[in-house]
Amino acid sequence: MSEEFIFKEDVRIYDTDAQGVVHYAGYYRFFTDAIEQFAKERIGTMFPLVDENTWFVVVESNARYYKSAHSGERLSVMLSPKLVSDKAIRFDFKIYRDGDLICDGYIVQVAIDKNKWKAVPIPKKFVEKLAS
Amino acid sequence: MSEEFIFKEDVRIYDTDAQGVVHYAGYYRFFTDAIEQFAKERIGTMFPLVDENTWFVVVESNARYYKSAHSGERLSVMLSPKLVSDKAIRFDFKIYRDGDLICDGYIVQVAIDKNKWKAVPIPKKFVEKLAS
Amino acid sequence: MSEEFIFKEDVRIYDTDAQGVVHYAGYYRFFTDAIEQFAKERIGTMFPLVDENTWFVVVESNARYYKSAHSGERLSVMLSPKLVSDKAIRFDFKIYRDGDLICDGYIVQVAIDKNKWKAVPIPKKFVEKLAS
Amino acid sequence: MSEEFIFKEDVRIYDTDAQGVVHYAGYYRFFTDAIEQFAKERIGTMFPLVDENTWFVVVESNARYYKSAHSGERLSVMLSPKLVSDKAIRFDFKIYRDGDLICDGYIVQVAIDKNKWKAVPIPKKFVEKLAS
Repeated sequence: MSEEFIFKEDVRIYDTDAQGVVHYAGYYRFFTDAIEQFAKERIGTMFPLVDENTWFVVVESNARYYKSAHSGERLSVMLSPKLVSDKAIRFDFKIYRDGDLICDGYIVQVAIDKNKWKAVPIPKKFVEKLAS
Repeated sequence: MSEEFIFKEDVRIYDTDAQGVVHYAGYYRFFTDAIEQFAKERIGTMFPLVDENTWFVVVESNARYYKSAHSGERLSVMLSPKLVSDKAIRFDFKIYRDGDLICDGYIVQVAIDKNKWKAVPIPKKFVEKLAS
Repeated sequence: MSEEFIFKEDVRIYDTDAQGVVHYAGYYRFFTDAIEQFAKERIGTMFPLVDENTWFVVVESNARYYKSAHSGERLSVMLSPKLVSDKAIRFDFKIYRDGDLICDGYIVQVAIDKNKWKAVPIPKKFVEKLAS
Repeated sequence: MSEEFIFKEDVRIYDTDAQGVVHYAGYYRFFTDAIEQFAKERIGTMFPLVDENTWFVVVESNARYYKSAHSGERLSVMLSPKLVSDKAIRFDFKIYRDGDLICDGYIVQVAIDKNKWKAVPIPKKFVEKLAS
């Protein structure tokens, strides 16, 4: 069973641009932070450089922006991971500020044999945690 | 009529990560560079801070990754802009290296009155260029 | 009296480059994070956008690199702030991994009236905390 | 004899932060771009991943900021490389906008054997170009 995971993120000055709010690509930093923390806490592994054989590589990224976030604000990044094949995981995100949804999106990652740069089955640790 | 625009991009060391290839979010830098250069050359304006009244803000971003790019490589970013409403432009991208498609994606931007932070009709300069 | 402040930082995949270690400019992200957290915890204010009148702007940055840091490692960023004039603060940093000094450096910031973009005396809150 | 090299840089929206001007660490992107272009044009090599044996790694970075730069502006990055030992090159930078010096700084890089991660003599190509 997939499970939601909440990561608290502080918006930094470097996340913003001259429009005074977080730059659109900055949200991918928040997505990445949430995945890495999820892997550490829930799977007990590094990510995306899992071990000497296995890496995860991104095959798609998407974000939709509803409201603006500002330097110094604290955001809640809600992550819902899901197996989409034996080789791919989709991470869905919803980012909230004080209960308001300000951004959502997803990242799809595929496990590879880092030495051959070929897709491989997702490590068991992930499958056991993500599959019901 | 919408028109394709080609922007040549050099992959820099800071675009890459420890997987030895361009980090997934790095492609959004390439998308952004292409839009800003397109606006300068084809519309004759700054972007996304168009003037003292008008800014463009991103409402959606998407990228799919097919092949890896490396530090020092030269890429061709093909941009196809399209009006999707009187207030929004969609920029579609295809990134090639030596004729191989390595990434595609899109960015949707909405024109706003920067003082009220409200959507407004896209400036005429853009409409004339982008509409047939 | 100035006081040391320790900020724990997780190295993320986007901090690294194709050399497999943290990109030199990535350490400035760690410096920035430490300052913002210091201001929040010790001064009780946002930073560098302090309030509707006062911002801090960077006038110098420096870093020296002794050892490499890797994705997934946890670093300790030690920050020592010091008043260097009535308008400027110097933040010195030492970054450790498991007790090893891997990087040191500093950032000098000047308080400005954000509306006039002119240097002004540092807000009292900072002076009281940083001066002995 | 060392020689000056000029690189033209367009300030992009992502280089800026919520202060409306280029973020201090953004100037290191400009420094990096200038070095990589210098290596390509003047030395005829990739940089910092020179070849299968040799990389350059940064051992110190420094920047001082005099004036602000804005999204859409075109800057001139003047680079002066200099051998400081048989293993290290110092790159000095001055960044101008319309003749005004807005930032200066330097980067020191050391050649390493990438397989042993040990300092080695700078490749001849660089020495011949940089030494008089």
